Amino acid sequence: MKVIMMMAMTLDGKIAKSSDHFPDWTSKEDKKLFAKTSKEAGVVIMGDKTFFTFPAPLKERLNVVFSLEEKPKVIEGVKWVKGEPEIVVKELEGLGYKSAILGGGAFINGLFLEHKLINEIWITVEPKLFGDGLPLFRGDFDVDLKLNSAEKINDNSVVLKYEVLY
Amino acid sequence: MKVIMMMAMTLDGKIAKSSDHFPDWTSKEDKKLFAKTSKEAGVVIMGDKTFFTFPAPLKERLNVVFSLEEKPKVIEGVKWVKGEPEIVVKELEGLGYKSAILGGGAFINGLFLEHKLINEIWITVEPKLFGDGLPLFRGDFDVDLKLNSAEKINDNSVVLKYEVLY
Repeated sequence: MKVIMMMAMTLDGKIAKSSDHFPDWTSKEDKKLFAKTSKEAGVVIMGDKTFFTFPAPLKERLNVVFSLEEKPKVIEGVKWVKGEPEIVVKELEGLGYKSAILGGGAFINGLFLEHKLINEIWITVEPKLFGDGLPLFRGDFDVDLKLNSAEKINDNSVVLKYEVLY
Repeated sequence: MKVIMMMAMTLDGKIAKSSDHFPDWTSKEDKKLFAKTSKEAGVVIMGDKTFFTFPAPLKERLNVVFSLEEKPKVIEGVKWVKGEPEIVVKELEGLGYKSAILGGGAFINGLFLEHKLINEIWITVEPKLFGDGLPLFRGDFDVDLKLNSAEKINDNSVVLKYEVLY
């Protein structure tokens, strides 16, 4: 299964000011690209902090949410998971998904990168600077990428698509 | 005087793994762009940690280096400065410079952004991920940018140029 990490970030590489910061600063073109691509995949993997910044689960997609809670609340459209990310990916493969979108936050992105489970990274660079804030990845890496495309999606936002070379 | 901040960063917004990390991971096209643009300006402003990652002062340019040292060592081609960045910029204007390149690191970049002294930002996004590392800016901001151009300078590196909207 192909895992595509899709994130919007400020030019200085921040995905939010803090973990409860709702992404109201991203462009509508980015939101459209995320909605279209993730609906095609049918599944979005994320951490519970990211999930709880949304007003409701993402519609028309399975929300696969990593949580350390013992008994997380049953919510329609949400599959709570924990433990090794390989096992989660295998399980999604078993359910017939051909690709999945990884949607943050920094800790879950870092976990998937560390386990070499991210195949592609699509970043929307938004015309903003936050300075201090949450990074794309937690963890210590030195990973090379191959640029597949660089494309403007509006006057000020650029989407960069890469393959990850482990 | 126009101040252009020029930095190479990883896709995840890091300018180095640590403050003594020499930028040997950036592309030769980025190095050429920096050399050409900064020689045209004639002056590069930076912090002393950044300066001391270089084997020698940048040639054919005035190296304006912020330092907290009381009596920094006299080095040919280096002008040691401290205090308010506005005064340093005014002094360079007085010397006849029309533009200056701001070249890091994170602390000095943040200082200049806080004082609204950066007019343009040119970022080379290199095809790498570092995870933990030094950010573009230290400090807490919410600054908007206007994209002027997005251009590939080789197969895998993209230069994004912005105006800063304070």
